Amino acid sequence: MANKEEKLGIKAKKSEDFSEWYNEVVIKAELAEHSPIKGFMVIKPRGYSIWEKIQNHFDKNIKKIGVENAYFPLLIPEKFFKKEAEHAEGFAPELAWITEKEEGEKYAIRPTSETIMYDSYSRWIRSWRDLPLRLNQWCNVLRWEVKQTKLFLRTREFLWQEGHCVYETEEECEKEAKMYLDEYKKICEELLAIPVLGGEKTDKERFAGAKRTYTLEALMPDGKALQMGTSHNLGQNFAKAFGIRFLGRDEKEKLPWQNSWGFSTRLIGALVMTHSDNKGLVLPPKVAPVQVVIVPIYDSTNKEKIIKKANEIKLKLKSYDVKLDDRDGYSPGWKFNEWELKGIPIRVEIGPKDIEKNQVVLVRRDTNEKEAVKISGLDKKVKGTLEYIQNHLFEKAKKFLKGNLVFAESWNDFANQLKARNLVNANFCGSIECEDDIKNKTNGATSRLIPFGQPKKLGKCINCGKEAKLIVIFGKAY
Amino acid sequence: MANKEEKLGIKAKKSEDFSEWYNEVVIKAELAEHSPIKGFMVIKPRGYSIWEKIQNHFDKNIKKIGVENAYFPLLIPEKFFKKEAEHAEGFAPELAWITEKEEGEKYAIRPTSETIMYDSYSRWIRSWRDLPLRLNQWCNVLRWEVKQTKLFLRTREFLWQEGHCVYETEEECEKEAKMYLDEYKKICEELLAIPVLGGEKTDKERFAGAKRTYTLEALMPDGKALQMGTSHNLGQNFAKAFGIRFLGRDEKEKLPWQNSWGFSTRLIGALVMTHSDNKGLVLPPKVAPVQVVIVPIYDSTNKEKIIKKANEIKLKLKSYDVKLDDRDGYSPGWKFNEWELKGIPIRVEIGPKDIEKNQVVLVRRDTNEKEAVKISGLDKKVKGTLEYIQNHLFEKAKKFLKGNLVFAESWNDFANQLKARNLVNANFCGSIECEDDIKNKTNGATSRLIPFGQPKKLGKCINCGKEAKLIVIFGKAY
Repeated sequence: MANKEEKLGIKAKKSEDFSEWYNEVVIKAELAEHSPIKGFMVIKPRGYSIWEKIQNHFDKNIKKIGVENAYFPLLIPEKFFKKEAEHAEGFAPELAWITEKEEGEKYAIRPTSETIMYDSYSRWIRSWRDLPLRLNQWCNVLRWEVKQTKLFLRTREFLWQEGHCVYETEEECEKEAKMYLDEYKKICEELLAIPVLGGEKTDKERFAGAKRTYTLEALMPDGKALQMGTSHNLGQNFAKAFGIRFLGRDEKEKLPWQNSWGFSTRLIGALVMTHSDNKGLVLPPKVAPVQVVIVPIYDSTNKEKIIKKANEIKLKLKSYDVKLDDRDGYSPGWKFNEWELKGIPIRVEIGPKDIEKNQVVLVRRDTNEKEAVKISGLDKKVKGTLEYIQNHLFEKAKKFLKGNLVFAESWNDFANQLKARNLVNANFCGSIECEDDIKNKTNGATSRLIPFGQPKKLGKCINCGKEAKLIVIFGKAY
Repeated sequence: MANKEEKLGIKAKKSEDFSEWYNEVVIKAELAEHSPIKGFMVIKPRGYSIWEKIQNHFDKNIKKIGVENAYFPLLIPEKFFKKEAEHAEGFAPELAWITEKEEGEKYAIRPTSETIMYDSYSRWIRSWRDLPLRLNQWCNVLRWEVKQTKLFLRTREFLWQEGHCVYETEEECEKEAKMYLDEYKKICEELLAIPVLGGEKTDKERFAGAKRTYTLEALMPDGKALQMGTSHNLGQNFAKAFGIRFLGRDEKEKLPWQNSWGFSTRLIGALVMTHSDNKGLVLPPKVAPVQVVIVPIYDSTNKEKIIKKANEIKLKLKSYDVKLDDRDGYSPGWKFNEWELKGIPIRVEIGPKDIEKNQVVLVRRDTNEKEAVKISGLDKKVKGTLEYIQNHLFEKAKKFLKGNLVFAESWNDFANQLKARNLVNANFCGSIECEDDIKNKTNGATSRLIPFGQPKKLGKCINCGKEAKLIVIFGKAY
């Protein structure tokens, strides 16, 4: 048993070796693991069930808006990529091709589905009556990354959703591109308890083929920003490239407006990083596959009685996701460690003394606080505690983000704040060359977003000193 | 408008050109269409939502059993295929390979995931405490078919679920292999209203690498059998090949037992064939994305009043999936045709005369029966009618199956019954050679299943005349 206990724990410290700590949490909490195929991961049931929670929430929300799910082919013909030049160039290095099966047919595995979907759209859309067209697809995509693999954050295959909508007017298209970003914000903040900053990407960081890219960025505890989801106003670029036309209300042929938007299983990586600690995974209750674990404490003289009571309690808590760990051959202490490692928000301990007093001991995963609770009031207490944990994790993360989001007035200040692992607001001229220069001089800092709600008066660009056109948040990023 | 109406209808007749009729129904009911990539399909929202209904039902059912979902890589290394010889040989012709990205690494897109999953299992499973391991995966698979593409039934990519379980004992493994088949039967009969025959596959038709394959077969209206789902008792073949071992309760190292089981989007094809008619799609209410469509009948003088009433009725029926078709610019007749084509089980018509009488006209898609129904009793009537349609479709299909399942005593009888498009029970010796011979002599009939519940006394093989070992059902198949 001792041997097992040793293997269970996380060895690296979050504050000392963040990268190794993250890897250990993901693997030891059994969320995912590296596949023998280089660059690929296996998403294990505990990780996949978090993805299912995210999917269920988001899927319901977008269906209310009127989005429908569909499924398009995994393979994309080379000729489709070639239709939108910027898009093709952006994805070319990351494509995996199929060895030719039929003369002259060259197919890649989808890195994203704009091209194959819009080819269909060009046949489906005839009149303004067919618009808006709002489709979403839950699927796997492949991007042949060469950088080092990081579970959930950088793998050659990942799971995601990609929404692809078509509109009559530019206004609608723009409005809804932002609306989907708001839906992502709900998922991040209300479900995952991760605060996010919303804004636009600079010219340099924009999606290949888009007119404007909107983004949500979260700040990880190591000071790196993580892109949580993006929504692209594609303008009419793809409509032109794929020949999507519609007959307007005025009986004239027109080009429609499009947006596309996506988030992926990397959200699970952000979730792990944001809330977890040196004991392992910490999960916000709304996304925890199991919310309460009951651990009975017994010996051979009272086992039957205690297991019976534990089952009664399980029944009492049936409106939550509850697990009773009545496995023999594992000590209570071992079970405590295991469920802490695996991030179950509330532990309920019940032993012989508790039964005498008609109580249980309730332990919070996020703070480790213990409290004796009368069984009669347990249901209510659990409800309140789950809400409290959800809020507490979000507030804690908000405080961290607020404390590490600064404004730099001078280049020295800017460079120092980046070194101190902050997200830094700065005046910026907007040019791609200047942004490249900043990246070089700061050892890799990039523009993360142009926050919504820009000030009217701007100063000089933090780097080149020309008139600034924007306030931009810079940072190191995943 | 006339032009549109013409385009809407199904031209081929189910009884005359079944194949063309099927294709038209799938395309015109907007379930799916051919992709520009040869052999691939696009599953459109109306088709995908049926898949979602099937997924939701099945996913809930297997989770109750203790099955968990996970996700394994899309790509499978060549060396994994080579580990189980029979399996590798079975799938070799249908594999699509990735052009080499790294020296010596040869990957194919998964045609099924036994090999990549069991490689992980060999590391995950250590002791009897880790068993049973029950995982399922919802994903896309690729099998490079060369035969003609048929939407949902034969495409190079399809969506499916694949369950992969590991057990301590042969008994458990065998018992659960059959249990999953029972779960499939529930989906087929209770949800899709398609009656199925359950049994085992012959040596010739068994899954590549399995010890025993269990199958459910349905009979399509054109007399061809369709395999609805299979569950394989893999024995210890893959455990041996992939080195899966566990420490037993007796502290000795043992080989575990495995099963795998899957069904795919071809179920949607079976659904279309079984119930639909010359007017288009017919859907059993339990799997219909929209169960009731309300069509208001109005002119400019009474539009407001009727639309208001239609909305009241919609609200009254909110416990069902209801759609109110209040589009302007389409006549009621056009709407009737459209929703008949698209298979909505119940149509509720409401016009000025109906309002006067506090009634609506309710029309059943399956029988075309019309009935005036008081608005006060509509909720109850709809509930009953949906149940009635679900049962009626199932009973009708059962009657068809029963009427076309025969027993042949002689070769002539056997050959004639096959020509008459029946499923034919016959005494069979069990040999692969004899089965090949039957296939040649009957222009393609294959053994579909060895029904559960074999008789004790058997006669002579219908073909070779040797002692029969089994009663087998033969038929033409998709």
